[in-house]
Amino acid sequence: MIKYQLKLQYIGTHYSGWQSQKSRPTVQGTVQAAVQRVTGQAVSVVGAGRTDAGVHALGQVAHFRLQGPVEPLRLQRALNGVLPGDIRILRLAAAPPAFHAQKDAVKKRYSYRFYNGPILSPFLAGRVYHVVHRLDSEAMCEAAAALVGRHDFTAFAAAASKVRDHHRTIFLSQLQVHGYHLRYEIEADGFLHHMVRNIVGTLLQIGSAKRAPSDISKILLSGDRRNAGPTAAAHGLYLVRIWYPVSK
Amino acid sequence: MIKYQLKLQYIGTHYSGWQSQKSRPTVQGTVQAAVQRVTGQAVSVVGAGRTDAGVHALGQVAHFRLQGPVEPLRLQRALNGVLPGDIRILRLAAAPPAFHAQKDAVKKRYSYRFYNGPILSPFLAGRVYHVVHRLDSEAMCEAAAALVGRHDFTAFAAAASKVRDHHRTIFLSQLQVHGYHLRYEIEADGFLHHMVRNIVGTLLQIGSAKRAPSDISKILLSGDRRNAGPTAAAHGLYLVRIWYPVSK
Repeated sequence: MIKYQLKLQYIGTHYSGWQSQKSRPTVQGTVQAAVQRVTGQAVSVVGAGRTDAGVHALGQVAHFRLQGPVEPLRLQRALNGVLPGDIRILRLAAAPPAFHAQKDAVKKRYSYRFYNGPILSPFLAGRVYHVVHRLDSEAMCEAAAALVGRHDFTAFAAAASKVRDHHRTIFLSQLQVHGYHLRYEIEADGFLHHMVRNIVGTLLQIGSAKRAPSDISKILLSGDRRNAGPTAAAHGLYLVRIWYPVSK
Repeated sequence: MIKYQLKLQYIGTHYSGWQSQKSRPTVQGTVQAAVQRVTGQAVSVVGAGRTDAGVHALGQVAHFRLQGPVEPLRLQRALNGVLPGDIRILRLAAAPPAFHAQKDAVKKRYSYRFYNGPILSPFLAGRVYHVVHRLDSEAMCEAAAALVGRHDFTAFAAAASKVRDHHRTIFLSQLQVHGYHLRYEIEADGFLHHMVRNIVGTLLQIGSAKRAPSDISKILLSGDRRNAGPTAAAHGLYLVRIWYPVSK
């Protein structure tokens, strides 16, 4: 068995998330079907991040194993030839036997995009979250910065989270403002389920003057999901990049 | 009756073009249905350019008439509230009684967008025309420039064109190159049916070394549609802007 790693982009709009489901189209299921169609082999494609329904990816990473070697560039072209246009494999290469797209990841970056102007261009519909009322981006910047460091993110995890340890280290948590376009960028050693969207839902409350920027630290300390804001809409969220140790 | 003019953007992908058809969704039909839903009045929305199926618009202009005055901003918001996200009204205002979106237009700009790299991002799928083989952009630039001026465009008009006079004045005809992104911009006092797409199909042949840049002038002079290239795909084409006399 030879292992391959791939980097892919997708628009999440028409998929029930990354992870395979029996009766609904998913990104994982679609990629697995493409590999089977091209190679004749039924494979399991393991993704670094299990993005939710509607979430987009600019740089998802995944791995799978094949019996016998293939020419990576040829396989990549064949897969892109059968995949729908809303999923593209940007890179495909042989990987070390021990490589694991999910377990080996040391850092991930997500981006959440807002449009804070009166009318959303059709060309951005489904790709950014539209907020019509004027957001206080300075308050949101201040709140975002308070997340940097190692914290217990229980208050921002999905209530049903079954992960034992809710501590995560945030390397970057920053709101970027370009006119009507706002972009929240966050990098961490890992993310709990719904963590980014729950943080963004809270930042939106802060930007809408429903909460103070200093609430972020209080919510973190409380460890109670009920204190954080609602889960922000999926269609503003992008899985941007996954980092691995240089040796891998 | 009070006349209103509107500027709109749309993604053409899910529409059978601008013009109303009985059994297929069109942009005109969708906007007319929205006006009827909001005002209760059955109106005819007259567009400046009758874009084909799949063609996009960044700045289509249209007009319609209503019985009795309405507050334009309120009507615009109400219409955007019921229109699907792939059509947006950017501006709506009362217009002089004599204003006619199509007949009064003095200049129009179209843009045709290519992606000339190996892998098309899902975020550009359906929005640019993907050409994998390397195009000779210098040859295309040279050919594009030869169209500026007043010419008989019979050779670039749809064979079924019923317009009497095929003379049009081209103010701008330019290929812009930004890395893998190519953009052909053309401004004229008017366009014949399929004219931009037939020009682009010919430019693509020139960029693919199937023809010389100097062929453009020969094709124009021939006045024969069979001498020009094929009609380029609709999904790379954008109606960008319409100009009206300052007085209107």
